[in-house]
Amino acid sequence: MISEQQILELIRKLTPNSKKYLHDDVAILENNLVLTTDSLIENTHFTLKDYKPEEIGWKSVAVNLSDVASIGAKPLYALISLSISKKCSYKWLKNLYRGIVNCSKKYKVQIVGGNVARSKEINITVTIIGKATSKNNGLRSNAKPGDVVFATGTFGDSALGLYLLNKKNSYLIPYTSYLINTHKVPIPQIKLGQDIVRFTKRVSLMDASDGLADCLIQIAKESKVKIIAKEKEIPLSKDLLNSTKQNKINPYKLALYGGEDYQLVGTVSKKDIKNLKKFKEVKIIGEVVSGKGAFLKQSNGKIVKLDMKKAFKHFLK
Amino acid sequence: MISEQQILELIRKLTPNSKKYLHDDVAILENNLVLTTDSLIENTHFTLKDYKPEEIGWKSVAVNLSDVASIGAKPLYALISLSISKKCSYKWLKNLYRGIVNCSKKYKVQIVGGNVARSKEINITVTIIGKATSKNNGLRSNAKPGDVVFATGTFGDSALGLYLLNKKNSYLIPYTSYLINTHKVPIPQIKLGQDIVRFTKRVSLMDASDGLADCLIQIAKESKVKIIAKEKEIPLSKDLLNSTKQNKINPYKLALYGGEDYQLVGTVSKKDIKNLKKFKEVKIIGEVVSGKGAFLKQSNGKIVKLDMKKAFKHFLK
Repeated sequence: MISEQQILELIRKLTPNSKKYLHDDVAILENNLVLTTDSLIENTHFTLKDYKPEEIGWKSVAVNLSDVASIGAKPLYALISLSISKKCSYKWLKNLYRGIVNCSKKYKVQIVGGNVARSKEINITVTIIGKATSKNNGLRSNAKPGDVVFATGTFGDSALGLYLLNKKNSYLIPYTSYLINTHKVPIPQIKLGQDIVRFTKRVSLMDASDGLADCLIQIAKESKVKIIAKEKEIPLSKDLLNSTKQNKINPYKLALYGGEDYQLVGTVSKKDIKNLKKFKEVKIIGEVVSGKGAFLKQSNGKIVKLDMKKAFKHFLK
Repeated sequence: MISEQQILELIRKLTPNSKKYLHDDVAILENNLVLTTDSLIENTHFTLKDYKPEEIGWKSVAVNLSDVASIGAKPLYALISLSISKKCSYKWLKNLYRGIVNCSKKYKVQIVGGNVARSKEINITVTIIGKATSKNNGLRSNAKPGDVVFATGTFGDSALGLYLLNKKNSYLIPYTSYLINTHKVPIPQIKLGQDIVRFTKRVSLMDASDGLADCLIQIAKESKVKIIAKEKEIPLSKDLLNSTKQNKINPYKLALYGGEDYQLVGTVSKKDIKNLKKFKEVKIIGEVVSGKGAFLKQSNGKIVKLDMKKAFKHFLK
């Protein structure tokens, strides 16, 4: 099976003129216009058994808004491309669109078009058009040695939510509601993303859609720097701590490799981090130095390299 | 099974503020920005058996460019959202992207982003961003009584190409190559669309992706006028005439209901049509009068109402 990385390399090779656009999840075009797209696919990202149509609709827009948040931009318009199967009833579709419309309204996004086609599997591809709110564009190539690494919110909740959704062990129930909801109905950090680019002079920023470790690895790679995150500084929710303790799961592996938290991760100068202290969601989790690669300083003092091959599924199964 | 029309009505009802955008295939936003999206789906729009990856790639971009052409706009940027299955080899993907890149280059479109995900069926959703080239925006609500109806190129070729692709009767071979190629590798009428809005004061314009009849019905509906097209004026290719004669198929039904011709259909004033005479592809095929609905004046003098229920498959099988 071909990896996403291989495909990206292929596209970059075939479109050398597009290189500058293809290193972030969002393209920044002329006149501060920004553009992003993402798909939710049945059986890959959701099942009809476990997800209400409203949840799928919300999430299809929210994952795109999270990309817009990752450069501190303001979302404006959405296109909804829908491939539906025979299974979809009118009522199901109506509730799917309710979710799409609710999320769009919440973040002041105007739906301006789309497409409907037939397929065996349901596929919802959303495109968002927005405006950059600052010259400080949050590209992941902006990190510099001497920067501090920060993160917003908590990590691992969504990954554990997905795990609990699949397991449904009765003894996990007390802690499941928040975690499963976080997984199904993510909250894009639109306002916080805008605040971060507004109150800093230079920031590298990403949303943690593929996990905290992925963010640190990507920023280190694109900025040609070394990042060291401290395990004990990674913010975890109480629900996650309770649930992982009871199940003897390492919460930090979930936080690092789980993904779909849709929180923001970035780096700023030591001077700029002072301006972010007013935002209680922002927490310092590490530092940027000369060198390359992303590393974790474990609570026992040992420093290990972060590696996406250590992904979620391998250790939870 | 829910119809596309029912879904469109649903979306319009749930997003009353979006109504003005949702009556054409392309949304026209602030600063002349235009936006459109369309998907090609395995087994719905192509099969791996009958289509080369380069053809699928080309077509995925071309069908979107045809929507851009339908308002005479200039395409600028593209996003490619790809859902791929395990069947896709690296070589197949490379050739798919070659087709995508070739079509983009040909029409000076810059690929600026996209997304890759896993699915059982291959789904390629392309979004194009462009600029309107004129205040004369080609909306399908622009037709007025007294206008003449025109069309570019020939009709029915693609539908017969698809039919021949499925049949592969050896006695059809002499005429298949042009027709099948027209179906697989459509040519978006970008330049002609721009010329039409440039050389007219007011035009209603559509691309014939769902057939000539659909264009006439949609323009009549959105403009609240009656359209009468003349059967004998519908432009047909020699290959289509030869092939349908040999197979005793009514060529006009193919032309009206077949779809996927990606030619342009529109209405302009009698004064403006003089300015379009320099374009040899443009042919007058009917007239706009007061009333409602789209009609065909058959060669035998009988006038019949055009109705999308008379779609391609029903009469070819």
